This record gives sequence, C-alpha cells and structure tokens, in this order.
Amino acid sequence: MPEILGHNFIAGQRSAAGTQRLQSLDATTGEALPYTFVQATEAEVDRAAKAAAAAFAEFRQLAPTRRAEFLDAIAAELDELDEAFVAIVCRETALPAARIQGERGRTSGQMRLFAQVLRRGDFLGARIDLALPERQPLPRVDLRQMRIGVGPVAVFGASNFPLAFSTAGGDTAAALAAGCPVVFKAHSGHMATADLVGCAIQRAAERTGMPKGVFNMVFGGGVGEWLVKHPAIQAVGFTGSLKGGDALCRMAAERPQPIPVFAEMSSINPVIILPGALAKRGEAIARELAGSVCLGAGQFCTNPGLVIGLQSPQYSQLLGELGQHLDQQAGQTLLNAGGLRSYVGGLEHLKAHAGIEHLAGQAQEGSQARAQLFKADARLLVESDPLLQEEVFGPTTVAVEVKDNEQLRAALLGLRGQLTATLIGEAEDFEAFAWLVPLLEEKVGRILINGYPTGVEVCDAMVHGGPYPATSDARGTSVGTLAIDRFLRPVCYQNYPQSLLPEALRDGNPLGLRRLVNGQWSDAAI
Amino acid sequence: MPEILGHNFIAGQRSAAGTQRLQSLDATTGEALPYTFVQATEAEVDRAAKAAAAAFAEFRQLAPTRRAEFLDAIAAELDELDEAFVAIVCRETALPAARIQGERGRTSGQMRLFAQVLRRGDFLGARIDLALPERQPLPRVDLRQMRIGVGPVAVFGASNFPLAFSTAGGDTAAALAAGCPVVFKAHSGHMATADLVGCAIQRAAERTGMPKGVFNMVFGGGVGEWLVKHPAIQAVGFTGSLKGGDALCRMAAERPQPIPVFAEMSSINPVIILPGALAKRGEAIARELAGSVCLGAGQFCTNPGLVIGLQSPQYSQLLGELGQHLDQQAGQTLLNAGGLRSYVGGLEHLKAHAGIEHLAGQAQEGSQARAQLFKADARLLVESDPLLQEEVFGPTTVAVEVKDNEQLRAALLGLRGQLTATLIGEAEDFEAFAWLVPLLEEKVGRILINGYPTGVEVCDAMVHGGPYPATSDARGTSVGTLAIDRFLRPVCYQNYPQSLLPEALRDGNPLGLRRLVNGQWSDAAI
Repeated sequence: MPEILGHNFIAGQRSAAGTQRLQSLDATTGEALPYTFVQATEAEVDRAAKAAAAAFAEFRQLAPTRRAEFLDAIAAELDELDEAFVAIVCRETALPAARIQGERGRTSGQMRLFAQVLRRGDFLGARIDLALPERQPLPRVDLRQMRIGVGPVAVFGASNFPLAFSTAGGDTAAALAAGCPVVFKAHSGHMATADLVGCAIQRAAERTGMPKGVFNMVFGGGVGEWLVKHPAIQAVGFTGSLKGGDALCRMAAERPQPIPVFAEMSSINPVIILPGALAKRGEAIARELAGSVCLGAGQFCTNPGLVIGLQSPQYSQLLGELGQHLDQQAGQTLLNAGGLRSYVGGLEHLKAHAGIEHLAGQAQEGSQARAQLFKADARLLVESDPLLQEEVFGPTTVAVEVKDNEQLRAALLGLRGQLTATLIGEAEDFEAFAWLVPLLEEKVGRILINGYPTGVEVCDAMVHGGPYPATSDARGTSVGTLAIDRFLRPVCYQNYPQSLLPEALRDGNPLGLRRLVNGQWSDAAI
Repeated sequence: MPEILGHNFIAGQRSAAGTQRLQSLDATTGEALPYTFVQATEAEVDRAAKAAAAAFAEFRQLAPTRRAEFLDAIAAELDELDEAFVAIVCRETALPAARIQGERGRTSGQMRLFAQVLRRGDFLGARIDLALPERQPLPRVDLRQMRIGVGPVAVFGASNFPLAFSTAGGDTAAALAAGCPVVFKAHSGHMATADLVGCAIQRAAERTGMPKGVFNMVFGGGVGEWLVKHPAIQAVGFTGSLKGGDALCRMAAERPQPIPVFAEMSSINPVIILPGALAKRGEAIARELAGSVCLGAGQFCTNPGLVIGLQSPQYSQLLGELGQHLDQQAGQTLLNAGGLRSYVGGLEHLKAHAGIEHLAGQAQEGSQARAQLFKADARLLVESDPLLQEEVFGPTTVAVEVKDNEQLRAALLGLRGQLTATLIGEAEDFEAFAWLVPLLEEKVGRILINGYPTGVEVCDAMVHGGPYPATSDARGTSVGTLAIDRFLRPVCYQNYPQSLLPEALRDGNPLGLRRLVNGQWSDAAI
C-alpha cells in the first residue's frame, strides 16, 4: 500500500500549499487515525479546476475506446486494493469488511460497465440527415449530430458508500466516460480511503497515457463552494443531504454562467403492503422488511422509511412482528458521530410529533444506533406534513395505516418525489391495485414489485433518480449507464467536409456505430 | 375562419373570467386590430395548470401512435389555416405573407416529424436487464427502463416566429410528443394568431379524442409568473430574451419543488471568414452575409451579429462591400414598437462605446429599422467586454479584425456560449485552421461550414441550443427531434409481472421497438 500522503491531487501531482490540517477519525472509537490531510487553498481549488479545463479538449476527443481503456485500468487498480486498504476503509466508516469487499467489486464493475458503454458507442447519439439538394421549396444541407462532454465536472461523494458513490464512484465514472475531467471533493468521513483511491485513479491515468488533470481531488471543508463557483466547472454531481444538495443547486444557479447540478438527496422510499400478501406471508414480510430497514445500519438512500398498509388485523399483526424484529436488533455503529447526532435528532422530532406514536425499538442511548418503529396518522401523509417526508438517516421506519383505497390514494398523492416505491403483493393484489402503478410512476424513479429497495443494481436499466426532493432533476440517474447522459450535450455539424467531421459522423462509419440516418437506424456506412 | 374570441383556453373550454382587456396591434401602423383578448386571472391560470395535470395520466399513457395521430391532426389543421389567417399574422407581425406561408409549412412539418418520432419509438429509451438468478455472489433481479413525460409543461413562445416557435411551435410539439400536456402563455405580439392556432389545436384534440386539458392557453402580461410557480407545472420551455429567460430560471429554481427550464435566449452567432475564401470570393461573401444579416429584419436567434476576420487588405475590402450592401438596404418594419426601441437602444450603446466604430448604415430614424455595420477592437472580445456579447435584435452586425492566429484564438475563447458559429473557408483554410473546430465545439450548439446561420432546418440532427447564455442548459435543443428529451425522464421497473409492465417493456415487444437487452441492441421479442 502506498503512503497516505494527504495532499491534494492536481494535474497529476500532489499539492499541499495550505496550512490547515485535517484528521481522519476511527468511526467506531472516534480516535484520530495516524493520517493527516492538508486542506486545499482557494488557489489550489483554482488550479485543480483549471487543470481539469486544460485536460478537457484532449480527453473528450480521445477515441471512446481509449477512454474505455482508462476506465478498465481504474477498475483493475481498484481490484488490486488489498486487505490493508479494506481495513482502513472499515476503520473510517465502521462498515464491515465483507461490505467493503463487495463494494470494491461493485465499484470496479461500475467502471467496466461504463467502458462497455464507450465501446458500444451509442452514448454518442450519432444522427445524420443527408443533404437534399433537390428538395423544394428549399434544398436541405447536410446536418450531423453527436454528443460531447459538457466540460469539467465537480463531484461530491457520499459518506455511506465510501467506494461506490465516492472518489471512483458512479458520478466520477459517468463523467470520465462522457469525456469530462473530474475535480473530486474528498469526503471528510473517509479521507484516507479517498487518498488511496485517488492514487489508484492516478496510476491508471498514467498507465493509459491520459492527459494530466483528467482527475483531481481536493481535501477540506468549505472548498466545495469554490469549486462549484469556479468558471471552469461545467456541471456538478452530488450525493448527500437535501440541505447540502439544495445549497449547491442555489450556488450553481446564481453563477454568472449557471450550470446543471445533479444532486441525489432525500427519499423515504415507501413500501406498500397489499392485503393478499399480508394474508399469505405477513410473517416473512415483517422479517424481510426488518432486514432491509437495518441493512448497513439503515444508511442507504433507498432505506425503506415508510411502510403503508390498509387497516386490518393482519396489518396490525405485521407491525407487531416488525416491531419485535427491530426490538431484537443489536445496536449498530454509524458512519460518523455527526450521523449519530442527526439520527438521534430525527428520532426526537418523530417522538415529539403529536400525530406520531413510537411502536418499538430499544431506547436510543450510547454510541450505537438502535432500530426504531414509529406509526403515523395517515392524515400526515394526506396533508403532506413535512416531518413525515423527511429522511431520517438510520435504521428506522414509520408505519402508516390507511383506512381504505381512497385514503391510500390520497396518502400516496401527498408524497413528495422518491427514488423508489415498493409494492408487496400477490397476483390478485396486482389485479385489484393496478391503479397504483401509474400513480407511483409519477412519484418515483424506480418501482419494485416484491423486493426491497435497499439493493441498487448497476446496469443499463437502473434508475437511481426521481422527482424532487429525491434528486434535483428527475431526468437523470446517478446509478446505471444512463448516468452518462447528465454530462453530455449535443453538437450539430452543418455542411462539414468529411475530413473535419468527428469519426463518429463520417460516411464510412469507422466506429461501427448504429446511427439515425435520414430518420432510419442504420449500422451501415453511407 | 372562426371568430377570434380572445378567451383563454382551459380544459377544452374557453374562459374569460377576468376584467382586464388586451388589444392586438397592427405591427406596421401601430393601430389596434379589431380583436379583444381577456387577460387570464390567477384563478384561470390555476385552472389551466390543474387541467393539464388532470390530463397528464391519461395522455402520457396513450400508445405513442395515438399521440402521433394527435400531432398529425394538428399538422392538418395548421395546413388548413387559410390566407385570411396569413393576413392576420402579417398584420400582427409585419412579416411578409410568403414568410408566414413558409412558416406554416415548417410548423406543420415539425408536428409531423414528431409524429414520426413517436411511431419510431426510440424516444422511449427501452432497456431491459433480464434476471440472472444464478449470478454469484448475488442474483440479479429483472430490471426494465423506459422514459415517460415529466408532467405538464409551461411554454413561452417567441415573437419572431409567430407559428414555428409559438403556440403550436417546437416546444409545444416536443412536450406533446413526450406525453406532457401544455399550458401555453400566448405572446402579446400576436394574440389573434395565437387564438386561431389555439383553436386549430383544440379541433385536433377533439377530433382525435385527446383528454381535455391536453392543451391550454392563457392570455396576458404577468400571468407567466403564476404559471411557472404553479405546483402542477413540471418543466418550462421558453424562447426569448436573456433577461426574460434568466428571470424564469430564477423563479423555477426558487420554487419549493425546483423544475427544469429550457430557455433559448441570446446568441451573437460569430461568422469567421478565413483567408482563402476571402481571397477567392470576398465579394460573394459580402453579399451573402448582408442577406443573412437582414433576413427577416435581422430578427432571428441565429442572426450573424459578429463577423471575424484576420487583418488583411482583403478583409478590409470585404467590410467595405458589406457596408455598401447594408447601406443600400431599405428600412424594415420590426415585429413591434418595443422591438424597434430595443434596436435603437442597442445601436446607441454600440455607438457610445469608445472601442466600437460605426462603419456603415443609414441614420436610424423613423419607424423602420436600418441595417448597420460596426467595427469593434478585437481586445473587446479577448477581454469579454459584455457589450460586444449582447445580442442586438435587428439587422446589425459587428465586425472584428484580429491581427493573427493567436489573437483569433484569444478572441474566440473570450466568447460566451452561442447557438451557432460559422466558418467560411476553402479547403486549404480548413487544413490550416483545423484547430478552430474543437475550440468552437466547446462554445456552440451548431457549427456551419460555408453557409449562413439564419436557416434552422427541422430534422433529427439539428441542434438549436448551446452553452449559456445561448440557452439555460446546453444539454437540450429547441429545434429538431432531440428536443423531446428535455421533457422525458426515466422510470425503472423492477421484478414486474408482464401484465403490469408498459407495452414497451413486455417480453413480446408488441411495439416492435429496438431495445437494449442485456447490453445488446435487439429488435426481437424475448
């Protein structure tokens, strides 16, 4: 394992111009780890953004297969990160080793999936409308279109996935695939992890001959604002809190040149348990649901924070069983002390609300998070009570009992935008409740049938997005290959000679793309 | 021709609850036309937005071919608008009849092109990742993705294309194609035109059995703010001034639920004349360029407002000839009195600037716009002087002479985002100046070789977009079929039974789509 230097990554070099030192903490004990990080100065952030801008022209014009080599090389470097690395990630995040080993594979797999997208080439969106010199009343001139990267992207990773949503995570992978150099703001919760992953990306960049400045990383609190406001930055990817995401969106909108932000923020991920399933397998659902609520100490964006069922003895029984499971859960260490404070605060808000009742869960004290079950009056959903819509980040969920279909519909209509919604049901439920599907489609990015939202597959068809406040722009996703679209923009080439056209658009189709030619899809040369 | 009622269009009915009356003016004489329009009240705007929201679920779930029928029916109704209609448009806009006849065909053609997109089905972006139950360490569940409309769209049309960028224009066509009901804010510059086109859309909606509320239109100044702030509105399309677009973006960003805005705003569309072309055909270029500057009285978003050349006797000669052509131009009536005031003001700002010289053009007086040629010091571009970057809407252009390639590069780097850039050159120029192409790619939405930017073809490959301030989001276009993407968002269906899946994603592929199945494109059923 290389030394953890703690310096910023700028244009392929390490830089430590500042005087402010930061310490990484052991998430379980709160003790300082033996690594020191140097907060980036404003001048360093400026240099990092300019390094990304300087790399942009060369990087975006590389053949897609060359960028694929870079992503594959990052993947190989990530796979090489050894058990000593895993141990450091575990110390910084209190996540178990098996989880980090799995996440390492997920993160390298994500890089390789984007490499496949680059080799497939459809992300380029090649379109050709050939000249029609004889058209009346006016001839048509030759017009061709493809997509290029928007420019340097600032990425803010999440605390809860120190690999898959962080330094070499989905936003970084999508931006690099799109041809956009990245300036990553290292997460304060796992700076040693970030340093080691940054070195892995750096090695891959050198090995594959990428331009210096293709990847940069800065350490420190408050440096994010300089980054988002920097004129060289052309888009922002963020995973984190609603408050943090809203603040970045505001900064980006108020720039002299506003830029797009994709912020994945807040979701309570309703799980709706339908009567047939309740009757047939309530006990199993209670057990599985408890597992989903407590997975990773509830620190998932897709943690099921809301359980909805129709008033019935079976639903009451399920809530009783769910409460028992949660009562029996051992305490879990959260990612950091701030996370525990937020969790405790969130529970207190729920307990203080007149319309919310505490059903189960051991007293929340000490340094570990205890799983909790609450029950809220359905009217709080119908009336869009803000408290019920707020994500409490940790192993807790709120149950709601609706008295009939009409109240179910009203409760769901009262929901804000979500990453996911889940229906648990039997075949007869889906006949009777088919009307739920279009309603949920308008609220969420992903609808699951008979599953739990806490697994997010990395694949072409995944959507990890959804209407506000789940994200800042429902048209994007931060997981899956469609994530690349957030960082691409179309350019049209009119009446271009073949020699000046990008390869993707030349008559001979040297990249072997499937292109939209005169309104028809075609793999052929022209 | 139906009566011009002047009432708002809400949920398939006409509504005139307000007391404030508006008058449409003859653009040439300034006289009031014999039509009265009733400004929408806040309650009417609320009803219009709610009508759109009520129509959304049904409209977006129609088979794409059904929405195609609707668009084709609108096209047929537009084609039926007769010469009496054309005469009214001409009176409201001072545009010549031939132009309006052409624009009518362009507008119906645009609707038909989106109908083709709907029949092709690729806008759905269907993706399928089949379950992998045997995968280690964890199985993969069945995941499918397609895109649906974002919800009701508020559209603000432009004054300069009373048909193609207005009531039934590109934004309306793209939104309806995407399955999004529209609330259109009628442009105050052509309310009679808007009323007649609104009636045409209404007839098409009735004839094809569309849900009431699929199209709504409100009249009046100040009603736009109510519309953009209305919780039912989920996206905004706008064509107009930088100031207006910026204001809408700010309103949209400050909503409790922020929404995306695509605003096409301000562009000066640089034309770069390279030495080989200058030497070979300077005289023709001067003539053609004058034609492009004066086309439609210069009232095009893509009007060439900036001409750049390398210092040389040939370039001086071209500017002399360009000046002569512009001197000889007859005065032209602008779209409205406000436009003339802005034009006169813009010219005065240019004249008052110490670094800008007036080269040619008759004295600007009276009620018609006179074509003008200015020359600016190249340093104004290099230093990004704001005045030089501002669009002066009318038949004027600013010439810049750069002393060498280095200054040319610096001048282009100083440019803000543009809709278009144009290179006029010979084969040898494109060899010598190939370095211009990637530089311009990063600045603009469309690059033209040996053409003039004032023609915007409606086709698959067109991009009428570009980095700020050309638009508010470089990832979109407001002309061409890619415009539909602005109003679509992806939804993922996990572990769905076939019966609940949308048709686009069913195993049998009943829509005959080309789908991304397990990472491979396929037309087949599964």
